[in-house]
Amino acid sequence: MFNYLIKIEYNGSKFVGWQSQKNGISIQEKIEKALKKIFKIKIKINGAGRTDKGVHAYGQFANFFIDNRIDDKIKFLNSINFFLGKNLISIVEVKEKNKSFHARHSAKERIYEYQIINRQGSLSLDKYKSWHIKKKINLNILKKGAKILVGTHDFSTFRAASCSSKSAVKKLNSVKVEKKRDKIYIKFSSRSFLQNQVRSMVGSLKYLSTGKWSLMDFKKALKSKNRASCAPPAPACGLYLLNIKY
Amino acid sequence: MFNYLIKIEYNGSKFVGWQSQKNGISIQEKIEKALKKIFKIKIKINGAGRTDKGVHAYGQFANFFIDNRIDDKIKFLNSINFFLGKNLISIVEVKEKNKSFHARHSAKERIYEYQIINRQGSLSLDKYKSWHIKKKINLNILKKGAKILVGTHDFSTFRAASCSSKSAVKKLNSVKVEKKRDKIYIKFSSRSFLQNQVRSMVGSLKYLSTGKWSLMDFKKALKSKNRASCAPPAPACGLYLLNIKY
Repeated sequence: MFNYLIKIEYNGSKFVGWQSQKNGISIQEKIEKALKKIFKIKIKINGAGRTDKGVHAYGQFANFFIDNRIDDKIKFLNSINFFLGKNLISIVEVKEKNKSFHARHSAKERIYEYQIINRQGSLSLDKYKSWHIKKKINLNILKKGAKILVGTHDFSTFRAASCSSKSAVKKLNSVKVEKKRDKIYIKFSSRSFLQNQVRSMVGSLKYLSTGKWSLMDFKKALKSKNRASCAPPAPACGLYLLNIKY
Repeated sequence: MFNYLIKIEYNGSKFVGWQSQKNGISIQEKIEKALKKIFKIKIKINGAGRTDKGVHAYGQFANFFIDNRIDDKIKFLNSINFFLGKNLISIVEVKEKNKSFHARHSAKERIYEYQIINRQGSLSLDKYKSWHIKKKINLNILKKGAKILVGTHDFSTFRAASCSSKSAVKKLNSVKVEKKRDKIYIKFSSRSFLQNQVRSMVGSLKYLSTGKWSLMDFKKALKSKNRASCAPPAPACGLYLLNIKY
């Protein structure tokens, strides 16, 4: 038995999300089908994290077990990407791992990036790939809010009702805010995130940075540990699973 | 009479190019139609530069004359973007200019960016928006080649046969090369470019940086002033008109 880790990029616009579901086509399913075409047997992959419908990835990861070693990695990449065809899913790396490695459980840090276009005019090049906010965002205030989130907190405010995590206490390692032309990038890193946490934090940062909330309101929302205090979560289309560190 | 300058973003994938042509739908035509819906008269726009089929823009510019002042610029932007609808063309700015201003003739500097993804795996998030090069690019060599191009040269090697410019002598102000993850950005600035110049230079830089040409070969190609010495031009999908300075 050999254990392989693959790094995956995808445009999530046309999928129900990472995980196989009854109500539509998932990214996981498409990759498993492509693997079946190569290896002629059914292979189950373990994804590092479940991304929602419409969420993109530059660096999703998954591992799977097969009986034979992959000798030619370039040939493997070319084959799987050929079978994935026009799905806007790309396998960009493959690595052999030891048998105890698991893409989800072995992850040490997950990095998500949220992209916002802040301008009056509609989106073209970033359509379905960024959140379009017309109201002027105050970047300094946004950075102050981001700083408040860093560290260990009970993130119940920013957690979906359907989240199955045992505890809402998580350590957010860092939140970095950058602006390039009219695009704002907010990068979050943590060992793990609660369901909907990034989108909930970004929705609340939008309330803060467009003047709907004061810094005090923002702090109160976090400290309330109450989902009802959260601003409407940011849309899926601006969210990217950027990378996972092992 | 009032003279207005608009800044335009577009995804060029589905257009025949900037300029109105008989064989398909152009970006210019779509904008003129949207202006007609707003002002109820036919309005001709002067574009700053003609981008080819498939070339994108973050910062194309055009000017047009109308009889009445645009009092509410936000309302104008919302209206024109509404009429442009799902075309993946966005008007992102509008400014009043004096009567002698012309989007093409008044331009002081044009900035183009060429984007390359250098990896084995196919493209998803950047499909139709970057040139996919599988062969390993040597970034240091690429930077050396870029440096050779800077300055005043006869760029006949990098000029399309159909180019109508009087002289092939142009001053390339700068070429900047940056890499972020597996994406390479090459930014060119000049007062004006010959037809196909950027794509021809990038095609030749690819030959150089993937080892097909030596630095000597690259220099010879430039100095030959002969179109036949040029490498195959880079595809349109990786090229962006980034900005124009006035």
